[in-house]
Amino acid sequence: MTAPSLPETAHPPLTDQMRALGQGARAAAAVLAVAPADQRDQGLVAAGGAIRARAQEILDANAQDIAAAAARGLAKPLVERLTLTPDRVAAMARGLDDIAAFPDPLGTVLAEWQRPNGLKIQRVRVPLGVIGVIYESRPNVTADAGGLCLKSGNAVILRGGSECFQSNRAIAAALAAGLDAAGLPAAAIQLVPTTDRAAVGVMLGMDDLIDVIVPRGGRSLIERVSADSRIPVIRHLDGLCHVYVDGDADREKAVAVTVNAKMRRTSICGAAETLLVDRRVEASHLPVLVRALIDAGCEVRGDAASCAADPRVVPAGEDDWATEYLDAIISVRVVDGVDDAIAHIARYGSHHTDSIVTEAPAAADRFLARVDSAIVLWNASTQFADGGEFGMGAEIGISTGKLHARGPVGADQLTSYKYVVRGTGQVRP
Amino acid sequence: MTAPSLPETAHPPLTDQMRALGQGARAAAAVLAVAPADQRDQGLVAAGGAIRARAQEILDANAQDIAAAAARGLAKPLVERLTLTPDRVAAMARGLDDIAAFPDPLGTVLAEWQRPNGLKIQRVRVPLGVIGVIYESRPNVTADAGGLCLKSGNAVILRGGSECFQSNRAIAAALAAGLDAAGLPAAAIQLVPTTDRAAVGVMLGMDDLIDVIVPRGGRSLIERVSADSRIPVIRHLDGLCHVYVDGDADREKAVAVTVNAKMRRTSICGAAETLLVDRRVEASHLPVLVRALIDAGCEVRGDAASCAADPRVVPAGEDDWATEYLDAIISVRVVDGVDDAIAHIARYGSHHTDSIVTEAPAAADRFLARVDSAIVLWNASTQFADGGEFGMGAEIGISTGKLHARGPVGADQLTSYKYVVRGTGQVRP
Repeated sequence: MTAPSLPETAHPPLTDQMRALGQGARAAAAVLAVAPADQRDQGLVAAGGAIRARAQEILDANAQDIAAAAARGLAKPLVERLTLTPDRVAAMARGLDDIAAFPDPLGTVLAEWQRPNGLKIQRVRVPLGVIGVIYESRPNVTADAGGLCLKSGNAVILRGGSECFQSNRAIAAALAAGLDAAGLPAAAIQLVPTTDRAAVGVMLGMDDLIDVIVPRGGRSLIERVSADSRIPVIRHLDGLCHVYVDGDADREKAVAVTVNAKMRRTSICGAAETLLVDRRVEASHLPVLVRALIDAGCEVRGDAASCAADPRVVPAGEDDWATEYLDAIISVRVVDGVDDAIAHIARYGSHHTDSIVTEAPAAADRFLARVDSAIVLWNASTQFADGGEFGMGAEIGISTGKLHARGPVGADQLTSYKYVVRGTGQVRP
Repeated sequence: MTAPSLPETAHPPLTDQMRALGQGARAAAAVLAVAPADQRDQGLVAAGGAIRARAQEILDANAQDIAAAAARGLAKPLVERLTLTPDRVAAMARGLDDIAAFPDPLGTVLAEWQRPNGLKIQRVRVPLGVIGVIYESRPNVTADAGGLCLKSGNAVILRGGSECFQSNRAIAAALAAGLDAAGLPAAAIQLVPTTDRAAVGVMLGMDDLIDVIVPRGGRSLIERVSADSRIPVIRHLDGLCHVYVDGDADREKAVAVTVNAKMRRTSICGAAETLLVDRRVEASHLPVLVRALIDAGCEVRGDAASCAADPRVVPAGEDDWATEYLDAIISVRVVDGVDDAIAHIARYGSHHTDSIVTEAPAAADRFLARVDSAIVLWNASTQFADGGEFGMGAEIGISTGKLHARGPVGADQLTSYKYVVRGTGQVRP
């Protein structure tokens, strides 16, 4: 392990404090696992109500965080990220109501069958247990992650960024009021009550008390957490998403999908970073695509063919194909058909989300089957890579891993299963 | 990370050699992912045929391993483990036929729905990609793991124990012949061609080329692999399984289930290690249970009540409740009803397999819901904890983790899914 390490040298009182949180969470998880859906939903609705009732306290706490951030000279986009408004507080409360209205993920019988010896076997959905969420900057994660974990019957330990510690405390207090109103244990949703960075290291070593870690934030946070965790991690690293405009693409659709995929919001993981264009439509589609992107305010970095298509295109370097800009920049390359596009994506992609624009079903099928990404789209924008857009309700993130959960991680993905076997005294021969 | 480390200081040629294996596997995985089920099944059947045709070569190779083991003074049970017989070779071939006959796990549409904007979303089962299997002693794992991975469309890198290197090579050669006969890439199933221990360290760092690691062997192997791997691990550590005889248990059933759970085979992870007896049947059931176990050749270590029930019971120490004997020894304790049994299992259990014997459905439901184990049984022996007994065909192991796969890991569990989204030019508002 050569990755940079989080500080792990915690003083004993901190270790004890963190382990006490974990033991509380473990006990709460046992209660949540058998709490009826009604009770969990009641807790969510009550938590939403408490957030509305305490909106001013939450905004006041947030003002303290903003003042502290300003005093420390935090960069403007980071201050913007942590800033709450009455609208954002209302949206948090509404999010909890939405999660409550979503179907119960627990108890579902995923499969059942009977064996020749009479044993009846069911695979039944159960919570994961205790989830640790480590995040930065956005205080709404406190409500969203807390709500999703409660919905899915999991206890959660929330470790937010120190820059929004007061905001997170105020939101967590509202969630606690919701739990209390529903008769659920307070330890179902716990916020780490210290900004000591060593607490993260302790948390990542508590593999007897936490079942899964979900990091949310920048790449460096996610990499550090993944490198140091003794607990399985659900994560996404990069969203280096592609749009491939096939030789049989409708030009209007290609332009609409490409511009939306790149420019609707450039800072999200589902934003397109590279446009691949089939050589067959180099003359007919490429100049129009490039012009539309530039007109929308996008910098275009292209291969020789793309540079030839428009004088405003900047030559792309090898690094550009591997860069997630998260900005109004796109790399553009001409490829030799769908197989060449698939090969480019296999080499440079991040297994997140990739789209083909074509009217040819055979090319679409080939692309959808062979591109090894969590989400593959045909004639649709990569910006649909979102649990809400998928109709899954809130999401705790998008997984680019293949184990356990892939793509949007909602309440269903925060569950495991157990086998329940009913017999009449069977013994194994 | 304080766990003991595997040697990681590989010389550059070894690193290159291992990475070349990984790159070959990655390329083969792309082919397997779109290879039709017929072709994969044809490869399995041909591999089984090749094992039969080469039975003598395999036995000769095994004889070399046995001679080397004897020369090194390997303990008798270990020599027994690595020894092949004509029957065992035939069983390997039959296992491949069985896997071929099993339904194709790939391509299944796990869920599909349409969004109000017209997008059609499918969740489709796909292979994981490249699986690394690290195992000890039993050469049949080469055929079983290779076969399961091929069935599930995954490429596999097999790293067997040095003590059966020649046997594994001979079996892998037969598998390669099967792949060749079916027109599948040889790199779909690769055996690490060196006994250099540093190869394992290199393998565990190849997180760009291997998607999941499955260790099979003793606890120390699994712990070392888990501690050192940068790749997600599917594993089981302990099988500390319990039988709880409830106050409403039928005595005959209780005796039959308990003796079978403990004594049918004592060395498997589904063997019971602790018997819990409800105080309500201390007088009626406990002496009979203890006598039946002792008569079957089992050493009984008990609490005061159990010692009082039979003079041959040895007093149990605190360690006994936490010990997986994997031998003809059982710990026995009287508890105060189902909740006390659940609490004991939560404290000492390993989340593997636990059984309740009772005629009272309410007690059974409580136990089945609240015991947090991969497999919970009612009136049946814990020795049913097995993919074959579940009707899942062959298994690569039993997972005690909650992420991704829990319980028996068969072909279905060696898959992931992707979201396939079909549109008509949709862009996100």
